[in-house]
Amino acid sequence: MELEKYRLYSEAARGIRKAPLVFRGARVFMAHTGEFVQGNVAVADGIILGVGDYSGEEEIDLTGKYLCPGFIDSHLHLESTLVTPGELIRQAACCGTTTFIVDPHESANVSGSDGIDYILKQTEDAPANVFVMMPSCVPATHVDDNGCTLTAGRMKSYVEHPRVLGLGEVMDAASVINGSVSMHEKLALFEKRVKDGHAPFLSPGDLAAYALAGISTDHECVDYEYAMAECRNGMYVLIREGSAARNLEAIVSGIVSSRTDTSFFCFCTDDKHIEEIKREGHINYNIKRAVQLGLPVEKALKMATIQAARCYGLSGLGAVAPGYQADLVVLDDLEELNVLEVYHKGRRILPDEKAGIAACPPGLKNTVHLKNFSMERLKLRHEGGRAHVIRMIQGQIVTEDLYEEVPFQETEGERLFVPEGDYLKIAAVERHKGTGKTGTGIVKGFGLKGGAVASSVSHDSHNLIVIGDNDRDMYLAVQELARTQGGYTLVENGRVYETLPLPVMGLMSDAGYETVNSLLKRMIARAHEMGIPEGFDPFITLSFMALPVIPEIRITPRGVYLAKEDRILETPFEQKKAE
Amino acid sequence: MELEKYRLYSEAARGIRKAPLVFRGARVFMAHTGEFVQGNVAVADGIILGVGDYSGEEEIDLTGKYLCPGFIDSHLHLESTLVTPGELIRQAACCGTTTFIVDPHESANVSGSDGIDYILKQTEDAPANVFVMMPSCVPATHVDDNGCTLTAGRMKSYVEHPRVLGLGEVMDAASVINGSVSMHEKLALFEKRVKDGHAPFLSPGDLAAYALAGISTDHECVDYEYAMAECRNGMYVLIREGSAARNLEAIVSGIVSSRTDTSFFCFCTDDKHIEEIKREGHINYNIKRAVQLGLPVEKALKMATIQAARCYGLSGLGAVAPGYQADLVVLDDLEELNVLEVYHKGRRILPDEKAGIAACPPGLKNTVHLKNFSMERLKLRHEGGRAHVIRMIQGQIVTEDLYEEVPFQETEGERLFVPEGDYLKIAAVERHKGTGKTGTGIVKGFGLKGGAVASSVSHDSHNLIVIGDNDRDMYLAVQELARTQGGYTLVENGRVYETLPLPVMGLMSDAGYETVNSLLKRMIARAHEMGIPEGFDPFITLSFMALPVIPEIRITPRGVYLAKEDRILETPFEQKKAE
Repeated sequence: MELEKYRLYSEAARGIRKAPLVFRGARVFMAHTGEFVQGNVAVADGIILGVGDYSGEEEIDLTGKYLCPGFIDSHLHLESTLVTPGELIRQAACCGTTTFIVDPHESANVSGSDGIDYILKQTEDAPANVFVMMPSCVPATHVDDNGCTLTAGRMKSYVEHPRVLGLGEVMDAASVINGSVSMHEKLALFEKRVKDGHAPFLSPGDLAAYALAGISTDHECVDYEYAMAECRNGMYVLIREGSAARNLEAIVSGIVSSRTDTSFFCFCTDDKHIEEIKREGHINYNIKRAVQLGLPVEKALKMATIQAARCYGLSGLGAVAPGYQADLVVLDDLEELNVLEVYHKGRRILPDEKAGIAACPPGLKNTVHLKNFSMERLKLRHEGGRAHVIRMIQGQIVTEDLYEEVPFQETEGERLFVPEGDYLKIAAVERHKGTGKTGTGIVKGFGLKGGAVASSVSHDSHNLIVIGDNDRDMYLAVQELARTQGGYTLVENGRVYETLPLPVMGLMSDAGYETVNSLLKRMIARAHEMGIPEGFDPFITLSFMALPVIPEIRITPRGVYLAKEDRILETPFEQKKAE
Repeated sequence: MELEKYRLYSEAARGIRKAPLVFRGARVFMAHTGEFVQGNVAVADGIILGVGDYSGEEEIDLTGKYLCPGFIDSHLHLESTLVTPGELIRQAACCGTTTFIVDPHESANVSGSDGIDYILKQTEDAPANVFVMMPSCVPATHVDDNGCTLTAGRMKSYVEHPRVLGLGEVMDAASVINGSVSMHEKLALFEKRVKDGHAPFLSPGDLAAYALAGISTDHECVDYEYAMAECRNGMYVLIREGSAARNLEAIVSGIVSSRTDTSFFCFCTDDKHIEEIKREGHINYNIKRAVQLGLPVEKALKMATIQAARCYGLSGLGAVAPGYQADLVVLDDLEELNVLEVYHKGRRILPDEKAGIAACPPGLKNTVHLKNFSMERLKLRHEGGRAHVIRMIQGQIVTEDLYEEVPFQETEGERLFVPEGDYLKIAAVERHKGTGKTGTGIVKGFGLKGGAVASSVSHDSHNLIVIGDNDRDMYLAVQELARTQGGYTLVENGRVYETLPLPVMGLMSDAGYETVNSLLKRMIARAHEMGIPEGFDPFITLSFMALPVIPEIRITPRGVYLAKEDRILETPFEQKKAE
């Protein structure tokens, strides 16, 4: 702070002169002491000067209300929300989230450093604090066919960027604990910085080795016991409540019943669609759910503010105290926890203010490259015997590897798997480099009848992924996404019911969230009518079916992949390994 | 960590190979979750690999015992313990303190950067982690006559020193909040680093302005209410329990009765004599007292470990978890909390191991320079009317400014103040630059009869300070300290009863703590026999009587000083200002 400014601020803090702006009369959440205190908050130039008996040149009356520090989403992927970063941030900010710890993992997997630059550029003038963690696993695994490779060497130029905090979620736990050179070069590059984890199912010894490498957060815990194991190993637990993965109830229930010390717990959304943000909220929803489950509101607020700030070394964020940035959330009361107003650097964020959609470099809008794709590629020969089937589970991104008899038909001398009953076909089609690779498999639990759904968002490589009950509709869906250069599409009985184009890297729309929202609503409603159970978000669930780092079984352009065995199957009918 | 090493460590963490060292069977304190968990702790090269089901090449059986991270003293002055830094650290380390956040404020006030270099050098090979905060107030105030001036320019070369963490206690709150250029140059130099506070009595507005300048700790809180005020302003409260200042009971009682969130509280000793460390302990005593007062042991341990580590950004300290340094304390149980064994980087610290006393540069042993000092200088003319009297308070370093009639005698036409009853004489004699300045005043409450006590340790300028009931003994005491080039001395009826020489900058002895301890015991016992109440440590209490930053009234070589008015009195008989 410049000395001249400090002198003015000091006089206002001491009450010698009026502060430019005062929030009057609220009960203010004191993050450091975890309590509410009645007081006026003095602000100048977006900086909090003090909480006390202040009057201001401008005053905002908050009598009877509650004032909190802005909330922090400690881990999310902006791309997963389908809209451009600026739009997502404005919507989430209206829910009280004023700080975003963003991992541009998806953009990097499609477009490498151009993708990361896009995220940095698009969030430059956002009405919120946006920090970036460098994607650590691009590609995510050795079986991924993605668009780019991000080595430690290519990351170097980002280390000193003022908004780059550390290394993004390190999914490739095996490379960490086995001491892979390329992985440890990345860890070393961010030696004194935060390194985010992603390690949901490690044995106790593996988890110790993982933490020993300096990884200090995880957002993948799905239950209380594992969350505690990670925390004991010195890791912050980022409790996730997103669109596809909802871990809050399991973890917070455990915390409440065990009266756990929550100092090293924070909140995140990871992946949350804009439509759900609009409906139920963002980090404010994590807080509300936690309080409903019995967590004291003070503890929930600390998770959402000061604890996340400390986790990421953000010294001027997460509290209402002198010198902190005036990111403020006004709440109606401590039961409903409705967000009434949100301020970033002392300026109100208005929900109806249009977010400028910044232009996207043309190269990032031309990323779907297929080679000689035909219906033939979708054929899945039935080899006899039982097949590995991907069982999809409601509300989870994990899958179960079923090994069972599946239906077939003999056609023109070929014995082919044919979708029937609850058995559907799934395919992953490489789309970055036109390699022509296409993998096919069998899923259960998705329920779709008379059509296909497809997406160019499919973690982590973001190839095209499609599920259907007939090859014609699946083929049509893939072709449709090639035409729109990415998106979500729903095909019904030989025609495209609707497509949400996502032309920015095949991940995001630049048509504005209202368009995205209304298209998506219509498509989701129709998809459920076509048989997909209500517990699934058709597109988000689909988007995780190609993610090799999550157990047990996935589809990739190279074929079906068994995560625990780290093995690509030439055909789903390959024999199960003896246990 | 080198990759080759990591690979070996990872294998041991995963149980593929034996760990070199395992602590077996203890209940281990998990700092991140605030709970005890049964487990074996695997260690290699002083680094913790994991807590779990490990076996080791070497095993230390701790069945039935409790294992904690090493304790952290979040603020202390090594000089105040009278022995050389290496010795103090060994003694305190045997009490479980393995990390010391040291402010070499005293050395710097006498010898400037030579004094700081001495502290850094002497602690280089200590069996503990010693970090340094750069003394911010050398001299402490504009009324101080000290040995050196430490500007931001002179501090620059220390900023990148690996053991320098930030700026030491900023006592000169007025310079901070008024925006003094020289003070803010120092604050700016340590912009992104920790800046320790020292601000026991600020008004709410002044406290906000002080915190606004980025000051983020304080160890001077004497009561719960003020501690909470500081914490709400975003400051860590370092609860102090030292030799002279004991604030733990007041603050912890408040915490217990209000069930306060203690996330931003730590422990410190500030100033603690080696003799008291030997008798009652070090940070382990803070923990024990806090638990006796009703604080849950888990909360007390977090204050002493992980919270202090986070406060100072010490990422590998303060927990028993993978990657953390193997600084470990073995406790017998959770009631007595007796420290049985202490390990630093996995190596046991043995109490009987001799600390090497490293040589001291000759210049640092020649720092007492008087000019024409004579008994005449100690005369205090009685000007008539009432006098400002320094009332000393047991267990406190604050004083009270009494304004009352005092005894006098007429001698050779002069009307002089003469000690009588509870009124004694106090004098401060400049000793750095031979300026000849001597200030005299009147004290009450010290109780000494038939002699004088003197010290070259007198915060913050460390001039000679002496209290007596007759000028002859006071003169003799000052001459004795000039002879020994610093120390503590006790003079009784015209002869030196005993002197503890402190030749290192007039602050420390290099004769070994046994010598210091036995001399000190003898001197303190005799001083109490001579009338000093049991509630006073004669020398420590004396050493604070020249400290201008603490209210209400002090003696300096320039005369009596009224702290609240920031005013030097030409004579104690100067009229009191109308209130």
